[in-house]
Amino acid sequence: MKAVRVHSYGKPPTVDEVPEPAVTGPWDVLVQVGAAGLCRTDLHIVEGQWAEKSGVRLPYVIGHENAGWVREVGSAVTNVAAGDAVILHPLVTCGLCRPCRRGDDVHCENSRFPGIDCDGGMADLLLTNARSVVKLASGLEPAAVAALADAGLTAYHAVRKAAPLLHPGTTCVVIGAGGLGHIGIQCLLAMTATRVIVVDPSERARELARELGAHDVTDRTDELADTAHVVLDFVGEQGAEAAGLAMTRRAGSYYVIGYGGTVNIPTIDLISTERNIVGNLVGSYTDLDELMTLAAQGKVTLHTKTYQLSAVNEAIDDLETGGLAGRAILVP
Amino acid sequence: MKAVRVHSYGKPPTVDEVPEPAVTGPWDVLVQVGAAGLCRTDLHIVEGQWAEKSGVRLPYVIGHENAGWVREVGSAVTNVAAGDAVILHPLVTCGLCRPCRRGDDVHCENSRFPGIDCDGGMADLLLTNARSVVKLASGLEPAAVAALADAGLTAYHAVRKAAPLLHPGTTCVVIGAGGLGHIGIQCLLAMTATRVIVVDPSERARELARELGAHDVTDRTDELADTAHVVLDFVGEQGAEAAGLAMTRRAGSYYVIGYGGTVNIPTIDLISTERNIVGNLVGSYTDLDELMTLAAQGKVTLHTKTYQLSAVNEAIDDLETGGLAGRAILVP
Amino acid sequence: MKAVRVHSYGKPPTVDEVPEPAVTGPWDVLVQVGAAGLCRTDLHIVEGQWAEKSGVRLPYVIGHENAGWVREVGSAVTNVAAGDAVILHPLVTCGLCRPCRRGDDVHCENSRFPGIDCDGGMADLLLTNARSVVKLASGLEPAAVAALADAGLTAYHAVRKAAPLLHPGTTCVVIGAGGLGHIGIQCLLAMTATRVIVVDPSERARELARELGAHDVTDRTDELADTAHVVLDFVGEQGAEAAGLAMTRRAGSYYVIGYGGTVNIPTIDLISTERNIVGNLVGSYTDLDELMTLAAQGKVTLHTKTYQLSAVNEAIDDLETGGLAGRAILVP
Amino acid sequence: MKAVRVHSYGKPPTVDEVPEPAVTGPWDVLVQVGAAGLCRTDLHIVEGQWAEKSGVRLPYVIGHENAGWVREVGSAVTNVAAGDAVILHPLVTCGLCRPCRRGDDVHCENSRFPGIDCDGGMADLLLTNARSVVKLASGLEPAAVAALADAGLTAYHAVRKAAPLLHPGTTCVVIGAGGLGHIGIQCLLAMTATRVIVVDPSERARELARELGAHDVTDRTDELADTAHVVLDFVGEQGAEAAGLAMTRRAGSYYVIGYGGTVNIPTIDLISTERNIVGNLVGSYTDLDELMTLAAQGKVTLHTKTYQLSAVNEAIDDLETGGLAGRAILVP
Repeated sequence: MKAVRVHSYGKPPTVDEVPEPAVTGPWDVLVQVGAAGLCRTDLHIVEGQWAEKSGVRLPYVIGHENAGWVREVGSAVTNVAAGDAVILHPLVTCGLCRPCRRGDDVHCENSRFPGIDCDGGMADLLLTNARSVVKLASGLEPAAVAALADAGLTAYHAVRKAAPLLHPGTTCVVIGAGGLGHIGIQCLLAMTATRVIVVDPSERARELARELGAHDVTDRTDELADTAHVVLDFVGEQGAEAAGLAMTRRAGSYYVIGYGGTVNIPTIDLISTERNIVGNLVGSYTDLDELMTLAAQGKVTLHTKTYQLSAVNEAIDDLETGGLAGRAILVP
Repeated sequence: MKAVRVHSYGKPPTVDEVPEPAVTGPWDVLVQVGAAGLCRTDLHIVEGQWAEKSGVRLPYVIGHENAGWVREVGSAVTNVAAGDAVILHPLVTCGLCRPCRRGDDVHCENSRFPGIDCDGGMADLLLTNARSVVKLASGLEPAAVAALADAGLTAYHAVRKAAPLLHPGTTCVVIGAGGLGHIGIQCLLAMTATRVIVVDPSERARELARELGAHDVTDRTDELADTAHVVLDFVGEQGAEAAGLAMTRRAGSYYVIGYGGTVNIPTIDLISTERNIVGNLVGSYTDLDELMTLAAQGKVTLHTKTYQLSAVNEAIDDLETGGLAGRAILVP
Repeated sequence: MKAVRVHSYGKPPTVDEVPEPAVTGPWDVLVQVGAAGLCRTDLHIVEGQWAEKSGVRLPYVIGHENAGWVREVGSAVTNVAAGDAVILHPLVTCGLCRPCRRGDDVHCENSRFPGIDCDGGMADLLLTNARSVVKLASGLEPAAVAALADAGLTAYHAVRKAAPLLHPGTTCVVIGAGGLGHIGIQCLLAMTATRVIVVDPSERARELARELGAHDVTDRTDELADTAHVVLDFVGEQGAEAAGLAMTRRAGSYYVIGYGGTVNIPTIDLISTERNIVGNLVGSYTDLDELMTLAAQGKVTLHTKTYQLSAVNEAIDDLETGGLAGRAILVP
Repeated sequence: MKAVRVHSYGKPPTVDEVPEPAVTGPWDVLVQVGAAGLCRTDLHIVEGQWAEKSGVRLPYVIGHENAGWVREVGSAVTNVAAGDAVILHPLVTCGLCRPCRRGDDVHCENSRFPGIDCDGGMADLLLTNARSVVKLASGLEPAAVAALADAGLTAYHAVRKAAPLLHPGTTCVVIGAGGLGHIGIQCLLAMTATRVIVVDPSERARELARELGAHDVTDRTDELADTAHVVLDFVGEQGAEAAGLAMTRRAGSYYVIGYGGTVNIPTIDLISTERNIVGNLVGSYTDLDELMTLAAQGKVTLHTKTYQLSAVNEAIDDLETGGLAGRAILVP
């Protein structure tokens, strides 16, 4: 089969002919990839930023936002069957450790992360397991949802955690209306009655936020000081950290989703106003299942541009040079 | 009546003869003070550190941890009557703003803070209102509980917020077994089945923690890295901030109660482990009511040393020089 | 002033000329009534069904769904001023008992209920207190929201309690799309992403539900057995109790809002499926404040028919004979 | 191996020599049984009351409260190894359905229940899977905890659900201090600071409750009307249902754990006081893990009487005739 592989950090990946993976274990699920999202993390992998952290051996197949159709299942798999359209949770989890048993599978003590620390989905086929596959409702196409598998799931998860705080009369500031943020805005509007204010320096991003239904958009963070019950920071660097904290009001919560910067705040400022700082990782399997419900209901949609798998480096160039509106999707 | 007043910042307060306050408003409650706790904040007030923040006009009466007996009530007061033993919530709140209406009176938009920004309780009498007085169960003496009014209430509040996370099998690290921390330990043991580990550099403090029932005590924070589901930091400065964060495990929470230092953490470290930082202020009226239940049940006790009101500067000296075991209580 | 008073149970109320109430206490608020909703409970009062329970002395003024403009306030009132448009929480609460202090004012231990156990709002003026008045956002007219003060508030409260259970992918069945139910449907759609199925025998009610955005409507309860994560039963009698319980799925919850019937279920059926039965009363002050936000945002609207105060018995006749589409509003 | 099998409903089970079960699947775990609790449900099984519901084919091995040591594991099992002491969750769950993925495995859509609908643990060996085994802390013996696997787990689960309501100052009434109730009392005292009142007609049971630390015991339910924030009803029949509901106060919750009777309450009584009725099933895997922590800490202990497996019918006789103090444990 064809697969996009990294052979050497710092060099563009190549499209190789490799052996097909095969079902061997009872919980294995072999998926014919329908679409694989291209994400900024893929660029960082190619550059070698993840080399030490992932410990992966080169060459290997990248692609960690995957959807497709089940081709074959192991003997113990009962939740999907050949032919089912599925989206893949980014992690392959064990199901036996304490976090998994609580439903908190993102904190699985034995997880793998295909596309990061083992072969991923920019290929004709991807081998995963029964715990990673969420069956798509009829009408949902893999290409339409693939990019929700990681970026969208992260945005959904943060909104899901914040939603109980966002009753009518509250204000939620979203910092950054890009790939994650524009999903977050849609989730907020679908799941809460909070007032959504979007902060983004890009006029195009603000325009998109407004079209999606944001109640207000701005590029001025200073006017929002002490206003937000919740801040969802999809940037997490270059000043967003300080601005985000400054926007929370007494007893408010600052949700960190983007990263790269540093939270720096005197303890007196945290306690005198009793504010919270909440870290957010990707969502759980259940979160992905719920997000697919929103997608099936048309409440969350993605703008995408499709590339053939063989044009992966063209897609990478477009992403690097900022020429992309929406998410790049690779189709085998 | 006699009252301890600050006349000039940087000089010791004096015990003056001042006019008695009187009930004038319908919600007023005039309390004959039974005991007023002396707290490190009183030292900071005398030094002038609060001058700008409180904006109080000198001279005025200090004392913000008060308990006593009701002498007289205004026409609309229905929850206490003359003769009742009471403890006073540190804030006098309005009861009408949104936070008050939600029961979140600590965030009252119109509160006063007797002993900080108006006359306090180191005096024979203190004028407060019906919303500040919690009636004591029979058997509870004002002198035994006064110091719970602020320090104890802050510790209780943090434990109350953390308790839902502290199911059997979890670990809670308490940083600092001093004035607040030793109350926090007692609250944890009364309200949860978590394993309580206490960190304190002082052997005497560790000894006290062990006597109170802590499951483990230590002065080594490095051995506790990544172990705690919850860290309650009653210090909040001098390295406790960084050590506290380092002790939380994946999906764990760091509760800041003490202050003076700075939280400084890369956003990547917050999101990759999905940890939380939780600010904590003093507790609500309901929290104080609940804490009095624990006190009445004998589950929370305080070590105190009693001074006459006229010996206030002796008490201050003892507190400053570290010669005090337990809390200083001034008795008129 | 003019006021609708009951003089004798079983006889129509009359519009009388009575003395104006006056501000005497510090927390009093005198309201010039803008509109008073007419509710089925008013009919039951006139019939005498509430005589014993309320213990009210005749004659007295009915009307417990009130909105208007503040005319005068007592000396201690800080949250509203003369001229403010306000809606009135149905209860006048004490603010001092434990439930009030927790924000759970509906369970106030010392409340009065104007229009039920003392003079109500079908009059030119109504005397209430500062704890009952919610200021209306500019643009909200008293006549447009008065009927939300009790009926709407009850529906909102139940939805607010159920909302944390109603994540994407869940199903919520609403039994009864009448006065309360049609508000409940709007609240569900504004505050959650659940699938809303409405059950009502009336085609007109089902039509309304569909217009409001319900995802499905039906008059067949049998097809819904074991489907609902949450059932909101706005009927609570004549078989709705049993049907409602039968519609909940494993671990589901049956919210009782309407009344008149009886819940009858073997304990084995509750435990083997681990289901819950949740009683619901009117909402709190905070709930009413939040509901007014939804009203100001246009997310909750009421169909009303306006009558002059002097035509109260015409309105009562229309309500009794079923000739009313929407809620009757009396305007002085 | 030896196994206690039911051959014909209505006749005593016999101890048979049967083939040993063997590990065949990757997730299989073969357990050498250390102890199997005898429970009233076993009596009902023998009588035939479960015949239709379970659909089990005779003969089969009973015993659904099991603990022992792992003898052998399948190829995919990572959470236990041969030699580990374990307690068995009563259900064998799939790990793939939505409830399992949320951590709510008790509501697994594909579960089996060994000892009820397939071969159980009154035998030398029991075949289960990796998802059912909780490893015991060193120091915990299978015979000491086996009876916590079902009865104890049910009591723990109800207390765990109720604990967030049981802050200091609340009252919790426990109806029935028998097999489940006496575990419930211990869990309440370990996990909350609520006041525990125990109602039981048996003086011996009340005596036990008092020894365990209950704050008050009584056989009079009438004196407790409207007093309880939470009622945990471990009886659920013969009048306990009505008495339990009558004991809850406004906004209180009645937890049904025992069964056999019927809840019968007018909807007006549920809504006017806003009370809840909460069904409770056995606990989850995580609940069992937490309960084992309490057991290891010595906070939950069981009174047991040990019988040889071959003396199963003697144990059954003792249980039937009420001659047993504590739980009967069968040891191979």
